[in-house]
Amino acid sequence: MKKIIGTSLLFLSFSVFGQTKEDSIQFNKISTEILNNGKGYTELKELTKNIGHRLSGSDSYEKAVKWAESKLKNARADRVWLQEVMIPVWTRGKESLKIKVRDGKWLNLKMLSLGNSEGTGGKDISGDIIMVKSMEEYDKLLPEQVKDKILFFNYPFKQSFIETFKGYSDAAKYRVNAASLTAKKGGKFAIIRSLSSAFDDVPHTGAMYYENEGPQIPAVAIGNTTADELANYLKNNPVLAKLNSNCGMKGEKSSYSVIGEITGKKDKSVIVVGGHLDSWDVGEGAHDDGAGIVQSIEVLRTFKKLGIQNNHTIRVVCFANEENGVRGGVQYGKIAKENNEKHIFAIESDAGGFTPRGIALQMDNEKINQIKSWTELFFPYGVYNFEGRYSGTDLYPLHDMGVPTAELVPDSQRYFDIHHTEEDTFEKVNRRELLLGATTMTQIIYMIDKYW
Amino acid sequence: MKKIIGTSLLFLSFSVFGQTKEDSIQFNKISTEILNNGKGYTELKELTKNIGHRLSGSDSYEKAVKWAESKLKNARADRVWLQEVMIPVWTRGKESLKIKVRDGKWLNLKMLSLGNSEGTGGKDISGDIIMVKSMEEYDKLLPEQVKDKILFFNYPFKQSFIETFKGYSDAAKYRVNAASLTAKKGGKFAIIRSLSSAFDDVPHTGAMYYENEGPQIPAVAIGNTTADELANYLKNNPVLAKLNSNCGMKGEKSSYSVIGEITGKKDKSVIVVGGHLDSWDVGEGAHDDGAGIVQSIEVLRTFKKLGIQNNHTIRVVCFANEENGVRGGVQYGKIAKENNEKHIFAIESDAGGFTPRGIALQMDNEKINQIKSWTELFFPYGVYNFEGRYSGTDLYPLHDMGVPTAELVPDSQRYFDIHHTEEDTFEKVNRRELLLGATTMTQIIYMIDKYW
Repeated sequence: MKKIIGTSLLFLSFSVFGQTKEDSIQFNKISTEILNNGKGYTELKELTKNIGHRLSGSDSYEKAVKWAESKLKNARADRVWLQEVMIPVWTRGKESLKIKVRDGKWLNLKMLSLGNSEGTGGKDISGDIIMVKSMEEYDKLLPEQVKDKILFFNYPFKQSFIETFKGYSDAAKYRVNAASLTAKKGGKFAIIRSLSSAFDDVPHTGAMYYENEGPQIPAVAIGNTTADELANYLKNNPVLAKLNSNCGMKGEKSSYSVIGEITGKKDKSVIVVGGHLDSWDVGEGAHDDGAGIVQSIEVLRTFKKLGIQNNHTIRVVCFANEENGVRGGVQYGKIAKENNEKHIFAIESDAGGFTPRGIALQMDNEKINQIKSWTELFFPYGVYNFEGRYSGTDLYPLHDMGVPTAELVPDSQRYFDIHHTEEDTFEKVNRRELLLGATTMTQIIYMIDKYW
Repeated sequence: MKKIIGTSLLFLSFSVFGQTKEDSIQFNKISTEILNNGKGYTELKELTKNIGHRLSGSDSYEKAVKWAESKLKNARADRVWLQEVMIPVWTRGKESLKIKVRDGKWLNLKMLSLGNSEGTGGKDISGDIIMVKSMEEYDKLLPEQVKDKILFFNYPFKQSFIETFKGYSDAAKYRVNAASLTAKKGGKFAIIRSLSSAFDDVPHTGAMYYENEGPQIPAVAIGNTTADELANYLKNNPVLAKLNSNCGMKGEKSSYSVIGEITGKKDKSVIVVGGHLDSWDVGEGAHDDGAGIVQSIEVLRTFKKLGIQNNHTIRVVCFANEENGVRGGVQYGKIAKENNEKHIFAIESDAGGFTPRGIALQMDNEKINQIKSWTELFFPYGVYNFEGRYSGTDLYPLHDMGVPTAELVPDSQRYFDIHHTEEDTFEKVNRRELLLGATTMTQIIYMIDKYW
């Protein structure tokens, strides 16, 4: 109750400033410009169809760097540059997973190795599968039961969470840790059920990491229906699995984040808006995170097009290597510190190009309450929820330096159907939804720039 | 400001009743049941893939009647019946629209006749095209300019409305009236630019109506890119158009709405939840309105499955003929009146199976404020907006009898990309989004049933 009344009072105090009307007019100009003339959708088509997926370290990532540089220039940034960063080079290579039930034939399972996973060096590795459905079941397994076996973590993505990001967080530990958990008890490799909200046979990749000690054994993901079939086989029969994979980490190389800015008219303190330019090596990285990239560029383009006089420097950052290392985000924070740059706000779009519904705010309560006092302005745009307390992965280094950070919160229902899969394509992005996200980001930056 | 404070007070008074906690638990049970075990998505697959589109008067509509009857029985309705209603029979038949620019060849244009439009009786009708971009331009045309010509209403769907239903309402008069407007000034037939939020070449059909006087000339729709091309041709050249169509109204026939209910434990007053069973004769009528049908059945199934003791009778109505006559809705109201049935609330889902965001309320302010006082309960489900003042087309007869009516308000961004087209297919529906809509409907009916 208290919270609601608090918000009402904030509304009042904001209106007392007498600025709501002027801001409301500016909000409308922003949305009209973007919905009528926004370039984000056609730019996303270029990025996804001409370049496609763009894992850090790949040639296509380097193409994406050049593409982003040119788009920021087209959007009339005052300054565009590349920020060098060392990134890990992981490659997939050929891979296959087969199973044999009793004395039957080998069946090929649709699968994807998890990102960062080592492979088998092109050799077959095989063993009987043991299934666990939860961490509790894993904990009960004795090393002698797991030794030389394949561990199948069959933990389902929970449908009952209303926000799918909660289902994702709930299940993510299985993906991240499956290999090390399996190795710890002497297993040969790990299979996980994909972190997927869909009921299909699409495997989802995504980052896994090895603990410092212990052997670096492979981990792979299978789709939901394959996982169900495998579980079914395991009810009555021992199932032998055979993995062959050339995946693996191939050192590091020098690459770039791409940055463009329009200079502040009042001072040089910085507002960041960004997404990550890299994607996984399957699909087209359309929602994750082509959407965030074109939305961020759209913010800059709109400020220039409408001739909004920005007090502070507004900087678009297309981060390198969010998916399997976050090196771009870390490097950006490091350089900002070295250069003594003052950042007053940073927002990332990295939750898909779906209809925006809110902005998650990771900052002190006073600032949160001030932004919440603007709810009335955002409400007609379908943006009403400022409850989240997280911001994009790439912004954590800035957040740790004390910068107020935020993330666009789009509708989450479809994201984990396609996240990190072959299905994350341009066709899954809706023009209006994408551009409304850019609208929200432009509106919040307009407000921050004006009132902070 | 006032509004917000008002809501706060209502929150307070509702909490004072001490029932929020219990209701919140029930809300969670409802959502968990539907998201985990909901049958709506697989039922929609049956309806769209086994039966497909189902225009009133077609054989497939009759199949849909049998299907709905059986699904309501499976959902454990206490009583299921068919409500007879006379419906108009409109059929499309073969149709083609060609244009000739100067002395060039005839080009075939992708098109759809508008629903209810008469055709050409299989003969060619041709004439030069005159384009107008607005009603104002139409008003300026003299009859001698239009005589024997083809009028092309090239009015664009406005992208700048945040809610696409506003863009649709804004453009709908061109579709509904194009034929009569053209006839009034002596034209031969009308072409409209489709009421579409997409930038593609998909023609959108939908109902048109003839004024009582005047000849019943044909009206057809073309997609957005074809409309742009045609407008471009017309800049420099006269363009001849030729229409041939066997569309037309073929009298009336007897058909059915399908109704199922669970009887009230306290009294027999009725709460209606519904959608329309018919669709246009292209695509699969998945969002419009297969979604509303399966969501309504899901409400009944969930009440039974969770053993919620409903005070009032909860009645699912699968209305006949919403698309081109609203005969099912009108007949339902008529029979309700004849039988002296007391209806306390009715809600329709007919705005697509997308993520729910609110409930539009068409009733007196006291009731609206009571429902708004429940906002806190709905908020965690992404349902926050109770501002709309309309309800489904099929509920207007009930509304006119004084019944409080409502409509589910899903996210509107994608609806008019596919509405009334070949593209309105099962694949465009997301399982979680669809089931969350059913969740919202079950939750609001639970509240109404408990507190009214």
